[in-house]
Amino acid sequence: METHWIAVDWGTTNLRAYAMSSEHQVLSDAQSHDGAGKLSPDEFEDALLKLIDDWLVPDRITSVLVCGMAGAKQGWAEAPYLQTPCLPSSSDGLKAVETKDSRLKVSNLPGVCQQSPADVMRGEETQLAGLIADTGAKFNTVCLPGTHSKWVQLQDNQIHRFNTYMTGETFELLSQQSILRHELTSEGWNQSAFLEAVEESLKNPQQLLSDCFRIRAQGLLGKPDSASARARLSGLLIGAELAGAKSYWNNQNTALIGDDRLVTLYAEALTHIGGNSEIFSAQDMTLQGLIQVYKNLFNQ
Amino acid sequence: METHWIAVDWGTTNLRAYAMSSEHQVLSDAQSHDGAGKLSPDEFEDALLKLIDDWLVPDRITSVLVCGMAGAKQGWAEAPYLQTPCLPSSSDGLKAVETKDSRLKVSNLPGVCQQSPADVMRGEETQLAGLIADTGAKFNTVCLPGTHSKWVQLQDNQIHRFNTYMTGETFELLSQQSILRHELTSEGWNQSAFLEAVEESLKNPQQLLSDCFRIRAQGLLGKPDSASARARLSGLLIGAELAGAKSYWNNQNTALIGDDRLVTLYAEALTHIGGNSEIFSAQDMTLQGLIQVYKNLFNQ
Repeated sequence: METHWIAVDWGTTNLRAYAMSSEHQVLSDAQSHDGAGKLSPDEFEDALLKLIDDWLVPDRITSVLVCGMAGAKQGWAEAPYLQTPCLPSSSDGLKAVETKDSRLKVSNLPGVCQQSPADVMRGEETQLAGLIADTGAKFNTVCLPGTHSKWVQLQDNQIHRFNTYMTGETFELLSQQSILRHELTSEGWNQSAFLEAVEESLKNPQQLLSDCFRIRAQGLLGKPDSASARARLSGLLIGAELAGAKSYWNNQNTALIGDDRLVTLYAEALTHIGGNSEIFSAQDMTLQGLIQVYKNLFNQ
Repeated sequence: METHWIAVDWGTTNLRAYAMSSEHQVLSDAQSHDGAGKLSPDEFEDALLKLIDDWLVPDRITSVLVCGMAGAKQGWAEAPYLQTPCLPSSSDGLKAVETKDSRLKVSNLPGVCQQSPADVMRGEETQLAGLIADTGAKFNTVCLPGTHSKWVQLQDNQIHRFNTYMTGETFELLSQQSILRHELTSEGWNQSAFLEAVEESLKNPQQLLSDCFRIRAQGLLGKPDSASARARLSGLLIGAELAGAKSYWNNQNTALIGDDRLVTLYAEALTHIGGNSEIFSAQDMTLQGLIQVYKNLFNQ
């Protein structure tokens, strides 16, 4: 079957493309590590063609819909942010990207910004569009854990407000580069140490910078193993995020969108502190979201 | 005048030595960047002799009293921690260090640990000894800002309890290696942005990981200059530390010991949120502390 259009998820570190039928079924998919973070603007087209060239038909123009960092200021071509409140599946603000290859009609999706308090997302809005397409108005609260975790409140299927936490990035920096790295020498994991730390940090988030140092002190005094130390650091940071985001998850059923391991951790943390959640795959939601925008665009 | 003994402050990154008279006056001083962090155990003696060789007298043994990281497990020779509650100027737990040079009689001072909640210090206890020698029982609360800020409660001139915050190290990591580095491109400083952030973070420390990301979002939305962003990041982290350490500084006059710029920032932050403090030089307090331990040791 012939490729009708192409859906592209272009993150900072990965690029994923899907050949779509006219019925929005995936005919084929491909991925590479040509993330937007390492490409200069003139390298994007070649990186994309490496994945999708075989799907293109001579003398026919194929629409390519791209979400994520390819639309950022330092990406391929900037699609300026839409502002909250806004529909995440809007086809407003698409940025037509000039290409050398005449078989391509590329459009970058915009991210979403919030003026006060200042916040930005780029890519997550497409996952939110996918969630709404998938579940209707079932969820008011969505959490997208990751390097920069997002908490989002939906209202009438619009992005009403959101809040980003640097949880994942802080974990990476503290575990790999701070004094704590000496205590986190294995990839091991102790789930009860994780849950205990979530609870501790939820109750006393003002002790985060001190609780983190305690992992080092416990190591010097000969107490915890590396598996507990790693789980504890993760739990302290996620617990502090959950303390900050309590107005989102409290008394709500939270949709968690992200990679398997991380959303499972968040789900277990939420259950432990009395919250509810359901898990959705980031990849599925992104694809559903791109389909939704495509449908809106061509009124199909 | 002849060197009677030698006082040494051996930190992770710097080494400072003082030639002392029998009246505990500084006859001469010297320093180098041979910090304990980059030396293997067999390199310490040569690094020290480079600074003090001229002060030594043939056929006479000179006492060298060393505080700081030289006494850590990965240092020159480990002087195990004393446990709280303890006097910071005790000569208990001194570790005699073997040397090749027979003119030397080197002793490493122990650090101090707290079992519950687990915490450690090494070097700061000597500054506390110096403060007590200098001011008597005037201060119940001492803050030693730095890479790993310490808050200490003194009682009957003993270290009663203490708490370490990873504030300085987290600032270095976030400002140099996280996504925030794009917003902190200059060394500039905006004092009112600093104080505002201290206050914000003191009130809502559970938003720390989110407030930090906002610096990036504000940058992308074209708002603050780099000087404000840098001051804001520092203020958010120090504000979170002050929220955690409130039981120390609230209704107390806090002695601040550290490097000039940092203790001035902490003093201004404390004043802004209704605290009181007095400033002391880390270098002076260290030397006073070493003198105090030397006096106790020889009952002089």
